[in-house]
Amino acid sequence: MIDRIRRVYESHGFIPLETPAVEFVDVLGKFLPEAHTPEGGIFSFANRDLGPRADPQNPDYWTSLRYDLTAPLARVVAQYPELPRPFRRYQIGPVWRYEKPGPGRFREFFQFDFDSVGVPSVAADAEVCAIMCDVFEALGFAAGDYIVKVNNRKIMQGVLEACELPSTDVTDESSSAAAILRSIDKLDRLGIGGVRQLLGSGRKDETGDFTKGAGLSDKQIALVDRYLAAQVADRREACDVLEGLVGQTPSGAQGVKELRTIDAILRSQGIGGDRVVFDPTIIRGLSYYTGPVFEGQLKVKIKDEEGVERQFGTVFGGGRYDDLVERFTGKKVPATGASVGVDRLLEAMKLLASADRPRCTSQVLVTVMDQARLPDYFEMARAVRKRGYGVEVYLGAGRLGQQLKYADNLGIALAVIAGEDEFARGEVQIKDLRAGALLAEKIEDRQQWKEHAAQQSVKIAGLPDAVERLMEAQHGK
Amino acid sequence: MIDRIRRVYESHGFIPLETPAVEFVDVLGKFLPEAHTPEGGIFSFANRDLGPRADPQNPDYWTSLRYDLTAPLARVVAQYPELPRPFRRYQIGPVWRYEKPGPGRFREFFQFDFDSVGVPSVAADAEVCAIMCDVFEALGFAAGDYIVKVNNRKIMQGVLEACELPSTDVTDESSSAAAILRSIDKLDRLGIGGVRQLLGSGRKDETGDFTKGAGLSDKQIALVDRYLAAQVADRREACDVLEGLVGQTPSGAQGVKELRTIDAILRSQGIGGDRVVFDPTIIRGLSYYTGPVFEGQLKVKIKDEEGVERQFGTVFGGGRYDDLVERFTGKKVPATGASVGVDRLLEAMKLLASADRPRCTSQVLVTVMDQARLPDYFEMARAVRKRGYGVEVYLGAGRLGQQLKYADNLGIALAVIAGEDEFARGEVQIKDLRAGALLAEKIEDRQQWKEHAAQQSVKIAGLPDAVERLMEAQHGK
Repeated sequence: MIDRIRRVYESHGFIPLETPAVEFVDVLGKFLPEAHTPEGGIFSFANRDLGPRADPQNPDYWTSLRYDLTAPLARVVAQYPELPRPFRRYQIGPVWRYEKPGPGRFREFFQFDFDSVGVPSVAADAEVCAIMCDVFEALGFAAGDYIVKVNNRKIMQGVLEACELPSTDVTDESSSAAAILRSIDKLDRLGIGGVRQLLGSGRKDETGDFTKGAGLSDKQIALVDRYLAAQVADRREACDVLEGLVGQTPSGAQGVKELRTIDAILRSQGIGGDRVVFDPTIIRGLSYYTGPVFEGQLKVKIKDEEGVERQFGTVFGGGRYDDLVERFTGKKVPATGASVGVDRLLEAMKLLASADRPRCTSQVLVTVMDQARLPDYFEMARAVRKRGYGVEVYLGAGRLGQQLKYADNLGIALAVIAGEDEFARGEVQIKDLRAGALLAEKIEDRQQWKEHAAQQSVKIAGLPDAVERLMEAQHGK
Repeated sequence: MIDRIRRVYESHGFIPLETPAVEFVDVLGKFLPEAHTPEGGIFSFANRDLGPRADPQNPDYWTSLRYDLTAPLARVVAQYPELPRPFRRYQIGPVWRYEKPGPGRFREFFQFDFDSVGVPSVAADAEVCAIMCDVFEALGFAAGDYIVKVNNRKIMQGVLEACELPSTDVTDESSSAAAILRSIDKLDRLGIGGVRQLLGSGRKDETGDFTKGAGLSDKQIALVDRYLAAQVADRREACDVLEGLVGQTPSGAQGVKELRTIDAILRSQGIGGDRVVFDPTIIRGLSYYTGPVFEGQLKVKIKDEEGVERQFGTVFGGGRYDDLVERFTGKKVPATGASVGVDRLLEAMKLLASADRPRCTSQVLVTVMDQARLPDYFEMARAVRKRGYGVEVYLGAGRLGQQLKYADNLGIALAVIAGEDEFARGEVQIKDLRAGALLAEKIEDRQQWKEHAAQQSVKIAGLPDAVERLMEAQHGK
């Protein structure tokens, strides 16, 4: 899976980057943790090199495990001005979050990101959407199995402006602006009725808990309502609806213009509304993104913990973040990209392919009947390996039956068997395990083995040719 | 580089494994760190989940960053008895060491390991040597550029037994046995004279510092001397010499027998003394290995910090460790394997290939002359990408000269250029940048570009074919 994703990223000209797992805490853009009680969300530990200069208020005091791959990218771009610009890199690696993980999630998980830094044009955002589609399709998902949803932070800003709020600063979590976006983000779970309550006076849930509302007027709520109804399948139609709603605000007009450009660039590549839609309900991180935001969702149905069938959901997310590098350099460096949640995607692929067994890298197992003949077994293995097959000599302590079970468990295609009799004749036996997999469990000794049909005898020198023939026959099936 | 190594590992039937970066400290086999002063060598931090149950003397209190990939493997094997046995896995990932790193080394670095667990036969050790050779050769090193050196802890044990020491426990660092091995380990640096001093009464270095000796008698020193002289190129001859020296001790006899088996298995695969030698001076970690130990060295000459020419040295190390899994299960699980120092090897390859520029993943850059034509540029890019080439559309803010410099810096082969004139004719220009790379710096505007020779005009629909022709011509050069 990782190889396939990587090939897509590389086919678009992204180059690999590695960065350390450990960064100074201020690189991660969090506030300083308090002494001995590092802030939730990230794993931090004291930098022991400081010795007597150690001071928990010093940013160098805390070293942290990265919580994503984007903050380290911004640090690298700021630190190495000699890098090519645009700088297009992909990176895969673990990230760590100090939080209570949801079901099937972990505190350490893999992200696989691609980002373009130094790209002012919204064409780079269109490219992100196209690459997300390419990734899904490289993994065997077709249009309809997945959908890429796009929104634009500027359009949301336009809605807030059209609502004539006192402040439209969404980074202030106590503002009505932030409350509106939080309410929209709950549309999936609460439905439009629940969102309307949250936008207005507030909402009481089934357990009786009350969530304070954003306190909007009916007129304002109606505006947000119409905004959410712009969730239509056709991208141009969505742009027209949004234009009517927020086109008179500066942010809204700019946001719609950008979506129209994204639409045109995607259309030129044959990427229609069955693959990428504009969806006004997509919110993502509030304080982070500055323009288009993206979510790649799998529509594959799975059963959740309560046995309810639902869509697998988001495995890919991203957006434009023009302010992140500025934190280090003081200069605006426009950037956009997206990140695959590797573990989530792998889980989805397993559900689909039931690919739970260890991935087999050998096609051929050379079994060992006689320890004194090990040099011969290794010589055979090497001769077959030269033809491009994965080959291993069995090196455990098991007898033939166990050796064949080992091959079967790993999904190895062929077994090579040579004992005293075969060596005397200068021959080996080749057993087609995929044909005979069902019978393999029953074979316990050499005698039974000999009576078994799906095997053939060949001269030792002819082994590589015979393996090639059998492997081609298996793939022809 | 990593891909090539991986293909070798997979061709021998190893399957990939990922484990978390963070392990409980006792998994790593170190003693408990003291409260607030975690032990040197590993990065440890307090497990904040314990809350009021937190107790620094509790093994669960300390979580640590792994310092190698072997201890986590042993933990996984112990924890998941359902894994196939033999369990053959490869793993690449960062490891962390809390120590003062030497020049060109870092506290976080990558290892790329392969190990077989559940393999009692010394044939598995021979296999490790063969795989080390395959890796070097897959990376373009020939016999003579590299050498795999093999020793056997049992033979060293035999030497200690032949010396009739009171104790041959090398894990006791204060013992004469450990002092002997430490002295041998310094042969490279101090020469045989220095080692003899260390084996006897002690040695004073140039700065006047005195190192206490192992206190051996002249007869004992002479025995170690003869042992070190067994460093002969021919493996069978080395075995004969070692047999004469330690063949009368139980450990020594067993150790030589194992080397003879390794020799036979390697010979059957055509791996001679120009690739793998037996070298009695190879020591490696004292408390860890139980049988054969391996070092893969690059003989490539480099200049060190003082400008002295020397061999690049060890990039690959490993050995048999039959006791490691036992720590968890109480049951002996024989295992062997080796680890590539990825950063060191990459450094060596850079020195050889001067491959310092960012790795290019695009072969074609579609330049942008007109922002309004972005949909067309992306359409062209996609059409060429379908032929299997890496293609990107330039998304920075630079003019044509900067776009071509960007392509040149990244080593991109071809540039596609289309402005108003070309679109009017339904054509694009293709520029062979590798042919014209030297001139590219001089091209500052469109007019100069047009006058330049190494380019051709093709119909837009014919672009993918034309790219294919040009790329094939470049590779034919």
